[in-house]
Amino acid sequence: MTEIKIHASRDYTVSIGSGILSRIADWIPSGAGVCIVSDSNVGPIYGIILQKFFHANKIQNCYYTIPAGEASKNAESYLALLDYLSVNQFTRSDCIIALGGGVVGDLAGFAAATYLRGIPYIQVPTTLLAMVDSSVGGKTGIDLPAGKNLVGAFYQPAAVICDTDLMNTLPEEIFRDGCAEVIKYAVLYDPALFAHLEERGMDFDRERVITQCIEWKRKSVEQDELDRGSRMLLNLGHTIGHAIESVSNYCISHGQAVAIGIATVSRAAGCTDTDRILSLLHRFGLPTSCQYSAEALAQAAKSDKKRSGDQVHLIIPRAIGDCAVMPIDIEELEVFIKKGL
Amino acid sequence: MTEIKIHASRDYTVSIGSGILSRIADWIPSGAGVCIVSDSNVGPIYGIILQKFFHANKIQNCYYTIPAGEASKNAESYLALLDYLSVNQFTRSDCIIALGGGVVGDLAGFAAATYLRGIPYIQVPTTLLAMVDSSVGGKTGIDLPAGKNLVGAFYQPAAVICDTDLMNTLPEEIFRDGCAEVIKYAVLYDPALFAHLEERGMDFDRERVITQCIEWKRKSVEQDELDRGSRMLLNLGHTIGHAIESVSNYCISHGQAVAIGIATVSRAAGCTDTDRILSLLHRFGLPTSCQYSAEALAQAAKSDKKRSGDQVHLIIPRAIGDCAVMPIDIEELEVFIKKGL
Repeated sequence: MTEIKIHASRDYTVSIGSGILSRIADWIPSGAGVCIVSDSNVGPIYGIILQKFFHANKIQNCYYTIPAGEASKNAESYLALLDYLSVNQFTRSDCIIALGGGVVGDLAGFAAATYLRGIPYIQVPTTLLAMVDSSVGGKTGIDLPAGKNLVGAFYQPAAVICDTDLMNTLPEEIFRDGCAEVIKYAVLYDPALFAHLEERGMDFDRERVITQCIEWKRKSVEQDELDRGSRMLLNLGHTIGHAIESVSNYCISHGQAVAIGIATVSRAAGCTDTDRILSLLHRFGLPTSCQYSAEALAQAAKSDKKRSGDQVHLIIPRAIGDCAVMPIDIEELEVFIKKGL
Repeated sequence: MTEIKIHASRDYTVSIGSGILSRIADWIPSGAGVCIVSDSNVGPIYGIILQKFFHANKIQNCYYTIPAGEASKNAESYLALLDYLSVNQFTRSDCIIALGGGVVGDLAGFAAATYLRGIPYIQVPTTLLAMVDSSVGGKTGIDLPAGKNLVGAFYQPAAVICDTDLMNTLPEEIFRDGCAEVIKYAVLYDPALFAHLEERGMDFDRERVITQCIEWKRKSVEQDELDRGSRMLLNLGHTIGHAIESVSNYCISHGQAVAIGIATVSRAAGCTDTDRILSLLHRFGLPTSCQYSAEALAQAAKSDKKRSGDQVHLIIPRAIGDCAVMPIDIEELEVFIKKGL
């Protein structure tokens, strides 16, 4: 097992390893009751196992499930979860366990951030995407009809437990989705990681790669917890990616959209390593282009929450391991995107 | 005008004075658009004036109103406000103005805390209660069906503007409600303030008294922003007060309930100044007893969000200016309340 300590407004440890879920009880504060929040895909497999561990350790627990999928990351699910916690008289000394991918983690985390103005929560990510990205760093939230992640809080978890075995039951396309975020870290910061991915493809060393990605995320979060400066780099591929997700009515997955976003900004910015980036994305079975117009994507990007006045901050790869924040006028975005499509 | 600087996770200034609302534009960051959030009582009087100031200063603004009253502090109002902000494409560089009493401040503050994971907001309290209590310190939130303030965030405002003239249109019973919180500060910390109130009654020196109360609140917030320790003292009269509000189905106002709460714990704890406290409450036209049973109140107090496991933390006045936190088992609460009714 590898441990990474995160120093933020609340310090916590990310633990990464095979089979570590069986020691979940070690992470629960003495006397706390827990509410497992999961979804209809993950709950039937791992929720049951988790409950057994809690029963064996005499930890009072209850179980709340949402339908799998981004559509559940909405205000109704959030309020229903809050009502569930309040009806079950959860107190500030109890704890939420977010067992699932990014949707479960973001929703359960936001409930934890706001129920009684904040109770502890533990992230137990079950997808590669959630392990390397959403479970670490304290971004929680839900979608609004007007856009994704428009409501939320920065609220750090009490612990993150990445049991790499949980990915064994992951459908391949969901695993590929996570690979897009792994490739993002490689392009942003890490030529050695990029080379490892080129060499091994989908058969990369999971514990090593996940650990390396979380290390990069740790540095970013510690420098800029509230995402006002350097943490913006993690947004590589995401401004255009979010626009693609939105225009596709979320038929294109987050990972695929980010892959297209990375490819698009690489081409548009004239990144010297564009060919290597495109060919790595292809090797991972990820798309690098879409059928939407620059106009439609620029329009969708206008409601991006990172927009600041009349500008958005795009992340521009100059080369592998060398990316920069580029403020761009909202009016010039369409022309820029067009260059990269 | 008096200014008090608050040092918390975000530093800000509370300005107190007569007629200072006319200088509101000074507090708006350059280039920001504003959304005024108000209610059906206050909006028609001061919302219009505020909009005129903004128009005169070419500050882009829009206006969102809720029905006056605690019933509006719910999830539906919160979500509707978030939708309003997102449809109007508010960004992180824009700003919310909370113009009203505690309900507006708590609701608008919680929307500001969570919209795009946090945008700036300015508190413009229009009631005495909001000036001395809820507008300072960053507690924001909404009610759930299961209880008051069960959801929220600690999120400091960018500024607080207490224009004492705004109280001129305040109905007397709403002003009295605020006096209960003023008396709370006097009992907690300040024999001189208590004596001033005994001497002057409702005709106390408003700027001086409001400033003094905010000073006490400042100290409390700076010591314990997240309300895990000494800030709990501000809860004097509130555990029982909240229970009274709940059992009365919110027919008894917050200030009246707090007054009864202070009277009840003073009697139950055998406070040496109980007679002076009761007679000051009477002088302000505030009640000191209610018709509910200790059993009903203890039952309601069990869902208090300050409960920690099987204990609640009651604030006990030993004398004026000398109060203490007393943890009490939830099972013993009924007996304790009974002593004080």
